[in-house]
Amino acid sequence: MNSAPIRFAKGHGTENDFVLLPDPEGAIDLTPNLVRALCDRRAGIGADGVLRVVRTAAARDADQYVSAADWFMDYRNADGSVAEMCGNGIRVFARYLVESGLQAEGTFPIATRGGVRKVTAPSRGEVEVQMGRYQLPDLGSLKVSVGDRSWEAVAVEMPNPHAVAFVDNLAEAGSLLDAPAVDPAAAFPDGVNVEFGVVRGRDDLAMRVHERGVGETRSCGTGVCAAAVAYTLQSGGVAEVRDVSVEVPGGSLAVRISESGEVRLAGPAVVVARGEIDRGWLAVHV
Amino acid sequence: MNSAPIRFAKGHGTENDFVLLPDPEGAIDLTPNLVRALCDRRAGIGADGVLRVVRTAAARDADQYVSAADWFMDYRNADGSVAEMCGNGIRVFARYLVESGLQAEGTFPIATRGGVRKVTAPSRGEVEVQMGRYQLPDLGSLKVSVGDRSWEAVAVEMPNPHAVAFVDNLAEAGSLLDAPAVDPAAAFPDGVNVEFGVVRGRDDLAMRVHERGVGETRSCGTGVCAAAVAYTLQSGGVAEVRDVSVEVPGGSLAVRISESGEVRLAGPAVVVARGEIDRGWLAVHV
Repeated sequence: MNSAPIRFAKGHGTENDFVLLPDPEGAIDLTPNLVRALCDRRAGIGADGVLRVVRTAAARDADQYVSAADWFMDYRNADGSVAEMCGNGIRVFARYLVESGLQAEGTFPIATRGGVRKVTAPSRGEVEVQMGRYQLPDLGSLKVSVGDRSWEAVAVEMPNPHAVAFVDNLAEAGSLLDAPAVDPAAAFPDGVNVEFGVVRGRDDLAMRVHERGVGETRSCGTGVCAAAVAYTLQSGGVAEVRDVSVEVPGGSLAVRISESGEVRLAGPAVVVARGEIDRGWLAVHV
Repeated sequence: MNSAPIRFAKGHGTENDFVLLPDPEGAIDLTPNLVRALCDRRAGIGADGVLRVVRTAAARDADQYVSAADWFMDYRNADGSVAEMCGNGIRVFARYLVESGLQAEGTFPIATRGGVRKVTAPSRGEVEVQMGRYQLPDLGSLKVSVGDRSWEAVAVEMPNPHAVAFVDNLAEAGSLLDAPAVDPAAAFPDGVNVEFGVVRGRDDLAMRVHERGVGETRSCGTGVCAAAVAYTLQSGGVAEVRDVSVEVPGGSLAVRISESGEVRLAGPAVVVARGEIDRGWLAVHV
């Protein structure tokens, strides 16, 4: 760690929250220990993950993206592990770039470990991200269950795996303290995110989500997209484009699905505060 | 709310965490809404409470303390309610004053809604606070219970009410998701904090705490003092002074009890970060 102070911002998208670390020249040695300490909700700043804001040209993992995007989203989970993409995180990342004057408002590309994503970030209002194409793996019949209740489910890849079940009301899925069981269990050897959706009206959903390895969360960008995809499949499909609104516990998101399978996700992305990490605290945690 | 930016710091004492708002001239209109928004762990900064750092002469609630202390700790709980004193909060408050150059290191008074407290804050290391005298209300026989287990308990006022039970191991008290039952229930009409202590050696305790209205917490300054007091009563009393160390889930604290019943609490107090609240965020939440 060099001796320059570490600046930070905190932001959230539908209450999926992040510590942003502006690091244009790639000077911060972002160790798993430092990530865990920053994300600690009581002894640190607190967040679901860290978004290091680094120029693609200065990022070690992003050589192949240098000509495609100015900025690389170095995303880490709160447990210190490296992550590829996050539909809420990249929208907060884009809002931060524009609010900080690092990128002009409008549509621009951001490099991630999951590839380059186009975002549209006005200086105010909702931020949209092109999430890529959904895939429908052929798993045959699929069921999810909680306790002694079970529901038919649809598998959707965004590209991370989701199982979407529609229920009559969101309380049906119970406490979601434990991961819902999936049948056949062998369908998802690396685990699966499970969404429980309710259809409130034409193209209007509400849902809860259990994220693999995390538990029930306030929001999940790819989960919201997967639920919207599963809904369109059972309600007339997509001619040209279809707009579906999805409410999660942390807020509301809008999903646009095109006939070709491209999915866009739009919603609020907020910077809460900006500042500098205390140097004494930092010395203990790096 | 005036249009000046709002600065903040985040700090913690044994993982009891706070948003500090430096407001020397008393310019911030700290509404319950703003407190709740700041303490929101996903849509805000996140903390157990807010500590507004205001000069006693500029604080509306502190006229009687103007000659006794330069600074007033305007402490609010995360739910927006006004609070009197907090043994961890005042230590973080003192550390912030010294680190910010608002107060020279050493021993100085801080005014709180619970009265003036003397703190000793070196520029580094542990911060100590004089918590005042404990009281032992005469409640006769007292028991606390969790599920079908129950334990003898001792009532201690710091001056907030505590019931301290000693157990063989901390897991005995179970999940502490719900408030332990107290018998007689009428002994604490306003509720009670319940501590479960284990004696690990001479003057060496570990404990868990259930705070009334909150649930199990990582630390509770008055609860640590109450447990140390209850321990000394059953292990030889206090001749001159007695030093007891108490480990809580969030760290370790040291309690000094004098023969006259004065209690001091010492332990780590950490500033994690400093910065400014985003003005767009603020406009939505005030």
